[in-house]
Amino acid sequence: MQTADVMDQVDTRFFAEAFRSSLPLPAHLDPNFEDAIRHVLDNPGSLVRPRLVFQMATAYGLDSARAQELAVALEYFHTASLLFDDLPCMDNALERRGAACTHLVYGEEGAILTALALINRAYALIWRAVGDCPRARQTQALAFIEQCLGVGGLLNGQSFDLHFSALPRTLETTERIARGKTVSLIRLTLVLPAMLGGASARDLQQIERISVFWGLGYQIVDDLKDVLQSEEQSGKTAARDVLLGRPNIAAVIGIRDAVRRLIRLIDLGDRALRSLIVWRPELEFLERLRDELQQELARVTRDSCDLAERGKP
Amino acid sequence: MQTADVMDQVDTRFFAEAFRSSLPLPAHLDPNFEDAIRHVLDNPGSLVRPRLVFQMATAYGLDSARAQELAVALEYFHTASLLFDDLPCMDNALERRGAACTHLVYGEEGAILTALALINRAYALIWRAVGDCPRARQTQALAFIEQCLGVGGLLNGQSFDLHFSALPRTLETTERIARGKTVSLIRLTLVLPAMLGGASARDLQQIERISVFWGLGYQIVDDLKDVLQSEEQSGKTAARDVLLGRPNIAAVIGIRDAVRRLIRLIDLGDRALRSLIVWRPELEFLERLRDELQQELARVTRDSCDLAERGKP
Repeated sequence: MQTADVMDQVDTRFFAEAFRSSLPLPAHLDPNFEDAIRHVLDNPGSLVRPRLVFQMATAYGLDSARAQELAVALEYFHTASLLFDDLPCMDNALERRGAACTHLVYGEEGAILTALALINRAYALIWRAVGDCPRARQTQALAFIEQCLGVGGLLNGQSFDLHFSALPRTLETTERIARGKTVSLIRLTLVLPAMLGGASARDLQQIERISVFWGLGYQIVDDLKDVLQSEEQSGKTAARDVLLGRPNIAAVIGIRDAVRRLIRLIDLGDRALRSLIVWRPELEFLERLRDELQQELARVTRDSCDLAERGKP
Repeated sequence: MQTADVMDQVDTRFFAEAFRSSLPLPAHLDPNFEDAIRHVLDNPGSLVRPRLVFQMATAYGLDSARAQELAVALEYFHTASLLFDDLPCMDNALERRGAACTHLVYGEEGAILTALALINRAYALIWRAVGDCPRARQTQALAFIEQCLGVGGLLNGQSFDLHFSALPRTLETTERIARGKTVSLIRLTLVLPAMLGGASARDLQQIERISVFWGLGYQIVDDLKDVLQSEEQSGKTAARDVLLGRPNIAAVIGIRDAVRRLIRLIDLGDRALRSLIVWRPELEFLERLRDELQQELARVTRDSCDLAERGKP
């Protein structure tokens, strides 16, 4: 086993434990509510996001306790957004993170109250990291959080996503929705920890650019997978976008153009990343995220070729 | 018209405008989302709560801009809790604040995303009031907010409320649920502004006691109304608690004992209020809230007597 793999396992255990234990459950909770919360906390997903938050935060000088709280907080926000997304009135999903969706086991009310518990706790954890900063940085960070998670960010993206059928089916529209839905959370993951660590305006600008290019890139990968893969392979209820009338870049501009767009976004990301790492070599770990996006590209390209092969008479 | 009534009208217009305008809507929102938000912001309800927050905050020395932000923030939390409560998976209500429930007009997803927009904004507004305080007071206030709104407070009360049929039908159980659901928000309304204004531990203790007694008292009034009144009179979908298997103190211990319990709570509240106002005469405005609870008592007593009369052979 390579050292990186061993480190990953250690990291995964560390963040899974932090994810599980950072929402303390008081005595005398309603049993349905407690079980719903535990169901979510015991299925943390890949934990790529909190690992990145932690790395960014410590690279910019936050101490590891605060970096961990921030990492968990942002993962709680993300998890809450998934609980809402999966509800029957939204994506009506069946599985999440390899387990049955919370609302299917504990009712929609169980899923909603759990999501709100995660949000409440996430704000409390974030405030602890923010409270240590000088006042001007606090103001900047809180405005940024509001922008990403609020009415003009994630929430608007989600609403557009649900009402996509009323919109023009163009690359521009689908990318506008992806900016709200996907890029908002990636901006929080990469930009917020740097901001709280006092990153310069020049750093923040490049990290912003990287977040947009990679966020849009990962959305294309997701959309391509949804079109290309079966339920077993993708690990979540698949091929649903088209059925549900949801925005899907591969469905809108075609698989070939979606792959081209992805290549272009990776290239734009590479330029921003190179100019950032030149003066910030400690951010080299970001190359791994870039490499994973490249590997995803290779995978969807192979799958789309296979599909084209099979389509031949 | 009496001066107090004129002042009320001015106050109501002031807070209605603050409620409407404190959630800025960016351009290019999804039209369904924007309409759902406007539907909620244009129907602010009685605004008793933000008026109280404002009075408490200014009595303890917060400037009026911060007091207004805090008042709107807590009303946004309250409104968000109502949007969730009204969903089909919770109370399945039809009307709220004299208008159709948001989910009936803009879909469940519209109601949920609007509630999340209010919550996001509420945290941002609260932070502005909190950020001005010394660090120790910030920590105290943020822990208090988390306790009231979080997994052990409002959310647990709501979950117990929905799963009441599995619990013993006792005064103790119904009051435990009311502490979570109703008292949590009244504690935020009365205690938090005092806390942010630097109230002494002695003041906070009495205000805590008043919040609990009045919170439980108002819950009994609500429960009695639900049992006694028709839909037209109460202004919300009525007599639903029993139908839905929800906790209702009047249904559990009987109308007569519920009225007695209410009289006792008003009495306990009076003692705490008197000992508070002796050293804080500027909090005299709280007597009005107490008088309204007394008037509610008179009303439900009259209605229950009428009901008993009609019940005679």
